[in-house]
Amino acid sequence: MPLPEGEPRAFEALPLPPVAAAPRLSRAPGVVLHWIDAVDETGTRQRLAIPAERPLTVFVDKREIVTLMTLGAAPELLVLGWLLNQRLVARLDEIEAISVDWDVGAAAVKTREGISGIEARTARRTVTTGCGQGTVFGDQMADVERLRLGAGTTLDAPTLLAMLDRMRHRNSVHRAAGSVHGCALFRGPELLAACEDVGRHNAIDTLAGWMATRGVAGGDKLFYTTGRLTSEMVMKAAQMGISVVVRRNGITAMGHELAERLGMTLVGRAANRRFLCYCGFQRFVPAPAVVPAHT
Amino acid sequence: MPLPEGEPRAFEALPLPPVAAAPRLSRAPGVVLHWIDAVDETGTRQRLAIPAERPLTVFVDKREIVTLMTLGAAPELLVLGWLLNQRLVARLDEIEAISVDWDVGAAAVKTREGISGIEARTARRTVTTGCGQGTVFGDQMADVERLRLGAGTTLDAPTLLAMLDRMRHRNSVHRAAGSVHGCALFRGPELLAACEDVGRHNAIDTLAGWMATRGVAGGDKLFYTTGRLTSEMVMKAAQMGISVVVRRNGITAMGHELAERLGMTLVGRAANRRFLCYCGFQRFVPAPAVVPAHT
Repeated sequence: MPLPEGEPRAFEALPLPPVAAAPRLSRAPGVVLHWIDAVDETGTRQRLAIPAERPLTVFVDKREIVTLMTLGAAPELLVLGWLLNQRLVARLDEIEAISVDWDVGAAAVKTREGISGIEARTARRTVTTGCGQGTVFGDQMADVERLRLGAGTTLDAPTLLAMLDRMRHRNSVHRAAGSVHGCALFRGPELLAACEDVGRHNAIDTLAGWMATRGVAGGDKLFYTTGRLTSEMVMKAAQMGISVVVRRNGITAMGHELAERLGMTLVGRAANRRFLCYCGFQRFVPAPAVVPAHT
Repeated sequence: MPLPEGEPRAFEALPLPPVAAAPRLSRAPGVVLHWIDAVDETGTRQRLAIPAERPLTVFVDKREIVTLMTLGAAPELLVLGWLLNQRLVARLDEIEAISVDWDVGAAAVKTREGISGIEARTARRTVTTGCGQGTVFGDQMADVERLRLGAGTTLDAPTLLAMLDRMRHRNSVHRAAGSVHGCALFRGPELLAACEDVGRHNAIDTLAGWMATRGVAGGDKLFYTTGRLTSEMVMKAAQMGISVVVRRNGITAMGHELAERLGMTLVGRAANRRFLCYCGFQRFVPAPAVVPAHT
């Protein structure tokens, strides 16, 4: 796999100005490629890139909350998005600053007035599906009704194919080193922001942080992810107001059930100009007459 | 994707008798396929299978510990393996019985003498990479030295290719419904046990439960997984005594670093009779003269 020109961009976004309420953020992106020597099936040594992965311990007002394992492309946005998606923080202006220091692997979150009951609120946990056992603090799943999605936007086949093309042609860490997940936010076929991480939860959390700081709402956007659409991914997207989620591969039963209850449109198994819409059919505009030009 | 003959087997294993110390286990496998109606790109409705996914809340002596999201193929072995891999339980005979009841989504673990300090030991957590944010209680990562692997076994190219062939021809949930991860334990080219789950951590934990109840050691075995080799997957394999791990795709930096420190052999990017050995070269027997018969 030859490296594309230049370093891959694990996080990229339209250069929008931050909103007034946005916290002060350090800028400490980590180096995303790590080079190792491997040996191929014939015993020949070769040098290759793998994704970096580093622990980032989150301290809220000096209290240790959690350690995230991350590629570290946009760690401040990750921490902010994580706090928002865990609903530990409801409004952006509750946070004064987030400062990341890789020398000690720590993100220091400074709040304006503390987070009330943070200890109790991080005590109960669900080990979620993920590729494993993600963590959801609190009782997010109890809030499905509150999150019922509105009309949102629509998705037609040309837009979907343009999204997939755009993702394929990114100068991505996945292309250079494999083993990362990616998420992206689109307005129609236009890419607004994309993030890769060793965990797809980190990627979506980072986008949540970017959306919040830029005042970008999810309702009229399209969301793309490479990770499986498990229930907690669907829940996070819904919390971000997103009504249409596109995934290259498939879904699981609880992801499907939850998306149906939320009224979310899910599209998956997208390959060779073919795809499936799993639910939320009202936002999906099929292309009955299209015959693939190439396969 | 046509369904193979018969229901897929999310968990299968050689019929070995349980060891004397094995706890009593209920037998409550969940139904693994869930059928939904989807719409393809032309608007045509089609019925398809997706993997089931259900919450399983683990109670140890009536105290709620965690909720796992699982396909539920072998839930008792999953719970046992989870307790072992989290090192909440050190010896098999600490557990008297595990009983799963899907009507209430609960696994009741009955210990002989309680688990000392379980509250404190499940309090500190790391949200790990996974496809997201897996949970590791306690300070597993501090124990690398204790886990340094021995000579273990070797892996040559014909054995690796036989393993990959065997996995390809399984009547798997992945073939029927996509969106699951799989792990398998081999002795040379012979499949001993295989498990699929919506989370690859659940799959490896289930195999750990099977190995413990059957008295199967990891040292001379080969371990296959579809999930990315992140640090916590490497750590779990090491805890199971496994010295050789084969993965279809790539690895992340901490997975690589940890495997090197543990002295584990990692093989990945296996496709079309080609593959890479990332570390632990001493157990890897390359095949210098092999030219692929077909590509």
